[in-house]
Amino acid sequence: MTMDYELTITTFLERARDLFDHKEIVTALPDGSTHRYTYGDAYERISQLAHALDDYGMEPGDRSGVMALNNFRHYELYFGPSCSERSIHMVNHRLPEHHLVKIINEAGDRLLFLDPQFVDTIKPIADELDTIEQYVVLGDEDAIPETSLEPVTDYESFIAGYETDYDWPDIDEETESALCYTSGTTGLPKGVQYTHRGQFLHTMMHSHVDVFGVSESDVVIPVVPMFHVNGWGFPYTTTFTGAKIVLPGQHTDPDELIPIIEEENVSIAAAVPTVWMEVDRIIEESDELGPAVLDTLQSVLIGGSSPPESLIRKFDEVYEAPIGQGYGMTEASPHLANTLMTTEVKQLPEDEQDRLRMKAGVPAPGVKVRLRDKNGDPVPHDGETPGEVQARAPWLAGEYYSRPEATETSWTEDGYFSSGDVATIDEYGYIDVVDRLDDVIKSGGEWISSIELENALIGHGRVAEATVIGVPHQKWQERPVAYVVAEVDVTANDLREHLLEEFPKWWLPDRFEFVDEVPKTSTGKFDKLALTESFEERYGSLPVEE
Amino acid sequence: MTMDYELTITTFLERARDLFDHKEIVTALPDGSTHRYTYGDAYERISQLAHALDDYGMEPGDRSGVMALNNFRHYELYFGPSCSERSIHMVNHRLPEHHLVKIINEAGDRLLFLDPQFVDTIKPIADELDTIEQYVVLGDEDAIPETSLEPVTDYESFIAGYETDYDWPDIDEETESALCYTSGTTGLPKGVQYTHRGQFLHTMMHSHVDVFGVSESDVVIPVVPMFHVNGWGFPYTTTFTGAKIVLPGQHTDPDELIPIIEEENVSIAAAVPTVWMEVDRIIEESDELGPAVLDTLQSVLIGGSSPPESLIRKFDEVYEAPIGQGYGMTEASPHLANTLMTTEVKQLPEDEQDRLRMKAGVPAPGVKVRLRDKNGDPVPHDGETPGEVQARAPWLAGEYYSRPEATETSWTEDGYFSSGDVATIDEYGYIDVVDRLDDVIKSGGEWISSIELENALIGHGRVAEATVIGVPHQKWQERPVAYVVAEVDVTANDLREHLLEEFPKWWLPDRFEFVDEVPKTSTGKFDKLALTESFEERYGSLPVEE
Repeated sequence: MTMDYELTITTFLERARDLFDHKEIVTALPDGSTHRYTYGDAYERISQLAHALDDYGMEPGDRSGVMALNNFRHYELYFGPSCSERSIHMVNHRLPEHHLVKIINEAGDRLLFLDPQFVDTIKPIADELDTIEQYVVLGDEDAIPETSLEPVTDYESFIAGYETDYDWPDIDEETESALCYTSGTTGLPKGVQYTHRGQFLHTMMHSHVDVFGVSESDVVIPVVPMFHVNGWGFPYTTTFTGAKIVLPGQHTDPDELIPIIEEENVSIAAAVPTVWMEVDRIIEESDELGPAVLDTLQSVLIGGSSPPESLIRKFDEVYEAPIGQGYGMTEASPHLANTLMTTEVKQLPEDEQDRLRMKAGVPAPGVKVRLRDKNGDPVPHDGETPGEVQARAPWLAGEYYSRPEATETSWTEDGYFSSGDVATIDEYGYIDVVDRLDDVIKSGGEWISSIELENALIGHGRVAEATVIGVPHQKWQERPVAYVVAEVDVTANDLREHLLEEFPKWWLPDRFEFVDEVPKTSTGKFDKLALTESFEERYGSLPVEE
Repeated sequence: MTMDYELTITTFLERARDLFDHKEIVTALPDGSTHRYTYGDAYERISQLAHALDDYGMEPGDRSGVMALNNFRHYELYFGPSCSERSIHMVNHRLPEHHLVKIINEAGDRLLFLDPQFVDTIKPIADELDTIEQYVVLGDEDAIPETSLEPVTDYESFIAGYETDYDWPDIDEETESALCYTSGTTGLPKGVQYTHRGQFLHTMMHSHVDVFGVSESDVVIPVVPMFHVNGWGFPYTTTFTGAKIVLPGQHTDPDELIPIIEEENVSIAAAVPTVWMEVDRIIEESDELGPAVLDTLQSVLIGGSSPPESLIRKFDEVYEAPIGQGYGMTEASPHLANTLMTTEVKQLPEDEQDRLRMKAGVPAPGVKVRLRDKNGDPVPHDGETPGEVQARAPWLAGEYYSRPEATETSWTEDGYFSSGDVATIDEYGYIDVVDRLDDVIKSGGEWISSIELENALIGHGRVAEATVIGVPHQKWQERPVAYVVAEVDVTANDLREHLLEEFPKWWLPDRFEFVDEVPKTSTGKFDKLALTESFEERYGSLPVEE
């Protein structure tokens, strides 16, 4: 039989040490300068960090929190705790204070590593953090701001003087390597425990030639934050394959990214679509910059929402850096599906291909995806009938941390994760996410897609933002209500007429609320929960006559 | 924590069914015609096969043998038994009869599936096969030769009439999926049990962009036999990624392969180096064929021995299908290392790059490789000092089937497989296999590389074949003796002088035996065991004075 070989992220670390110790890790520092070192240097500091954790008395399984932007110390925290059999809890600093308190206490973090600028984020809630014993500011002793955080030290002092190699323990592959919380738009964040085995398999899949194909010869910039689902997994993938990695720190604005991409010869860049729309606009409007500024870029990886067709065309034809889409979620760490231009798809007319590329893509190797209707029955993969995306993957979580009720409703009896995403699947296997189940409006037993209504409202041309929520209705259970940021003379009737071109009458929102701004969550999504709550507070349910 | 998800080869089968049911599996039939069907068709017949095994009464874990060339029925046997929780034993028909008897009995195969042409191979030993209950000839009823094999049926009748879908069982990932025997040059073949988990991980690694990068858009021809270490894993890899697969059957001669590659638009071809030398010679000498005949070929994968530098150049420059090398062994199913043109290597002068490409390559993701000297102590990775290759990988076997003594000597106490290969590892991480430990001649405490001597002898120019064995010596323990097939007027002194240009005097063979042919094993390797035995029979040990 096969040898006893535990799948661990230590394997990544050791491969980089043995084969790629000369390859670079580059960080754009806050002051505009650049920090450069190698995987070999990082390995030594990661070893020091592991010794420091020993010395501090961190036991196997103990968690540290980290609240940081994408930088080399954050990278070190991806490995030091996990490879020495502890766990790292990556904290989203944009969460509301009461969420931060809740998740740090629930995780029981003993140490909290944080970038200097987040000391002010933590100070107001420090008294409520019951388990934190020690704050470690990510910098040297000059980096510690005048602060009331107690006790506090700096990262460089914390790891200084320790040996630069470490006798990494054998770790059972089912051991937690990291903890990450969802930033759902509904309810409290839920904890997802990543395991060494799951991360190994996710990382192996990430470099599959039909997924993201991250190679040794690539230069990868994860613009996506490292606290957000492991930076989509890129820090692990680059380490395993030996790709040069570029960490942008706070310099994630499109106008700051362009020179970084140019100077560091970035070949793969991962960020949400809006970043690329802005990058394109800047180059387009500049007198000095031309498309050549992105010459080294070979592939642009996006996630979170669909790219407009025009952007796909532009990056194909002008920048010659095709956009690939990934689809996933915190529970899947995160990857489940991606754009795959199969032999069959490449034979379709170009506009048909572009249409497919606006979809979430096909399941990655190892991922099983199915659609279920509201009764849990199978939905045909006909490209038209929507159903809830349910998935299995060897890197997908099997539960929420300490949340048995949420676990109960999010995993099926036969072991699938119920994603809450509503999608169609077409003849090419492409998944098209049309809605969140939370966002689907159940009107008299039928589903109305809030996302489709929102996209159509934006398509009106004089609407800047639009979100559609479902509110309780005395007869139909739920009915849609639209919140719209529009030019002043746009009326509800204008919008009704516009929507009737595309949708049946019963899909039309019962009310249009014209607002100055739609409230947003910590990750920039429309905060539908807040809207729903405030609507119900003000109006209660919609009466029958409406 | 992560969901319960067993890593199984059923995952490959189901992915092909769900996403790639329209993609082709092509077989070149013995009569020169071509059999074509799709992964969808194959899935249905694999389901029928699984039902037939149920009906026959095959229990979980029961083994079937298969003795076949690369064809679609052999492909079906890669999945039907394994995915229904049985195991398939791939039998090398070139083994000597007493080896065949030994391994089929040891495996306890209940069924033996065999191509019609192998009925004559089995007939003489059928009486000695204790566990075979039923022979199944791979074809329809007309395919059964007049034969004394009893009882016998044909494959098409065996699977006919069953349902074309199957409720695949949940299988523990540590379950044996297949059994394969080594064809070592020393001693009896040893059985290696592959597991579902091992094959899943090997297959995932195979499509890593820095390994073989087998993509959905590829057309793959495994010329390497499917009974030889799973056809290097390609049947599994193509199924998981949905690549079109072309099975050459008996048409593996270079002049037959050329039109198949051209007609089927093959992009990846896997075969030993001699095939490609011959393909090149044929095109070179042909009036009709030009390099364009290999236009679709993008990558040539070789293994088993190093390609000559001239062949590497030729395939780069003329055919534009770079040669990539793989290194592995039966125990590793088989992949451990491969050519990887890293950022660093690509900056070297071209001839330096070619030199590296003649080496076995760098460890694939997940593989740990180390060198040990004869005392088990570490050997520096300086590109010069040879040591035994010891390896760990999640798809590497942990034991030989039913051979505790062989297991004892081939696995170290700390869990590494002792490959018996002697290699150096250079600063780029490239492994260069310089010898088999069995082939290393231990002369007075020092190692003499028989392979280096053999290569030098071939390099003389007037030597067609050369093999060097170690024979017992009364003073030095072992000394080299060369067996040479050379032009008639070549003398031992000519060869001594030639070798002295490159090697110290003590490396020179004590004797040169001029022969008409060097005996070969069933897999075409020089049969050093036979030579050593016959030398010892004739001469005993070498006396001190020699």
